[in-house]
Amino acid sequence: MTETPVTGGVLAAVLTPLDERLDPDLPTYIAHCRALLAEGCTGLAVLGTTSEANSFSVEERIGMLEALAAAGIPGARLIPGTGCCAIPDAVRLTERAVALGAAGVLMLPPFYYKPVSDDGLFAAYSEVMQKVGDARLKVYLYHIPQNSGVPITFGLIEKLLKAYPATVVGIKDSAGAFANMDGMCKAFPGFRVFTGSDAFLLDVLRAGGAGSITACNNIAAARSARVYAGWRGADADRLQSALNDVRRTVQKFPLIESLKEIMARATGRPAWRRLRPPLMPLSAKEAAELGAALDSIAFSLERAA
Amino acid sequence: MTETPVTGGVLAAVLTPLDERLDPDLPTYIAHCRALLAEGCTGLAVLGTTSEANSFSVEERIGMLEALAAAGIPGARLIPGTGCCAIPDAVRLTERAVALGAAGVLMLPPFYYKPVSDDGLFAAYSEVMQKVGDARLKVYLYHIPQNSGVPITFGLIEKLLKAYPATVVGIKDSAGAFANMDGMCKAFPGFRVFTGSDAFLLDVLRAGGAGSITACNNIAAARSARVYAGWRGADADRLQSALNDVRRTVQKFPLIESLKEIMARATGRPAWRRLRPPLMPLSAKEAAELGAALDSIAFSLERAA
Repeated sequence: MTETPVTGGVLAAVLTPLDERLDPDLPTYIAHCRALLAEGCTGLAVLGTTSEANSFSVEERIGMLEALAAAGIPGARLIPGTGCCAIPDAVRLTERAVALGAAGVLMLPPFYYKPVSDDGLFAAYSEVMQKVGDARLKVYLYHIPQNSGVPITFGLIEKLLKAYPATVVGIKDSAGAFANMDGMCKAFPGFRVFTGSDAFLLDVLRAGGAGSITACNNIAAARSARVYAGWRGADADRLQSALNDVRRTVQKFPLIESLKEIMARATGRPAWRRLRPPLMPLSAKEAAELGAALDSIAFSLERAA
Repeated sequence: MTETPVTGGVLAAVLTPLDERLDPDLPTYIAHCRALLAEGCTGLAVLGTTSEANSFSVEERIGMLEALAAAGIPGARLIPGTGCCAIPDAVRLTERAVALGAAGVLMLPPFYYKPVSDDGLFAAYSEVMQKVGDARLKVYLYHIPQNSGVPITFGLIEKLLKAYPATVVGIKDSAGAFANMDGMCKAFPGFRVFTGSDAFLLDVLRAGGAGSITACNNIAAARSARVYAGWRGADADRLQSALNDVRRTVQKFPLIESLKEIMARATGRPAWRRLRPPLMPLSAKEAAELGAALDSIAFSLERAA
């Protein structure tokens, strides 16, 4: 593999299509990953929140990583989610990701106990990094308190950067407040700050951030890629606005469910409409409303074949 | 095994002692389980919140169940926690618990996504029960929104009882509001309501509930057992008050950490003082304050050798 590992740009938080048994539909998954790279994604954040990763066993998640590797998706383009409640699970997933050449891993904190101390979170991240014990490991922290219940504080980042400067390289901030992303860009130079919200892609790039890792990049990668390519240009705000149109429309509905519905409509593949419980497909009424809302902004998937 | 499966009374949410590698210290664990039954616990809720179950891999949890079985702890006394974010994990753990003769399982809802619909939670519980597909399975739902972020509503209970009347048999309510427990006792006759808070043991028994499943029962099982034995008697309020003394003192400190500190002091075993990150042992200062607080109520562990 001679590709340079991805360190910025626009990454999709990749959706997981499911077969009739609610197992990953690997051919559809691989084709989607290839299409996202062709559309302009600089990398793929597989096995994250949007991927329903926590609804899959560790074995299933490793199976998905291995399928991507076997299909020739370069590890250098992947930043898989590997954070788990149990340290041995996070270690196993992270080891496998590193072995497959992943550019980095996106690591949720353990998310069952709350509140937990920064010392406890530091210890948890330390244990995983030390047990993996591989100089190739690059860790992106994952700040998504609305799901995890466990925020990543500036104090924790500072402590981790001091202890693991070559390993802890960035963060995905999905909390939806730009001030936090801006603050991290200022407080931690060189630390790669990815927005988890499409709305802040241009803002975070202007603040010195790394780019975006978002759910909407499953259906709007081309729009995000145009923002990333043109963010220094005169046209940047217009390009961001075109991205906002999609996000603003989709976010009126449950996000993962809606993106799967959109993929199902665009491709005709029922694998996209399935979710693992506790998530459920949109109702017919919601799906119709979503379709009408997207028609009103003349949205279509920019995808070859 | 001819023992009658436990359906009520006072159960300990069993702590997990850890060796120097932070793996379960099985001999100490087994001895603790035996001691709890000797002290008056009617059953053992292993692999729950207090047990740090979500900090262990599925394999580790199954190993602990098998160690208890091999040590002769009757399955009829066990209600292990088996709820996981991923359905295949919950199925695997539940199958193993049933195979080992467990009286029931205490099942967390999938706890990463929030909010989720009752339909989604119903589908998740249904999938697990149908995939296990064993008439011996008895499920206790687990309402602990402060950790799971996913409450178990009356609507969900009603739907589950209608669909699985022989399987869904009760709930542990750890949310700390007696009104909710009382409401469930009234709304669902025959549904076994366990309080997760020691403070409500007498109240829930008087309301027709099943008993308690609590963390403090690791150190106060004898006090809880006296409430359970005497709840219809004239002395009941005094017995409950003696239990409250312990709980009130311990709850000024982080709960799991404090109970482990108390066990470490009482037994001299360092295995009790260890926790898996993100949980951390009490600081020396906290431990000293806890010790003084317990001395002030003349607390001691009621345990033979």
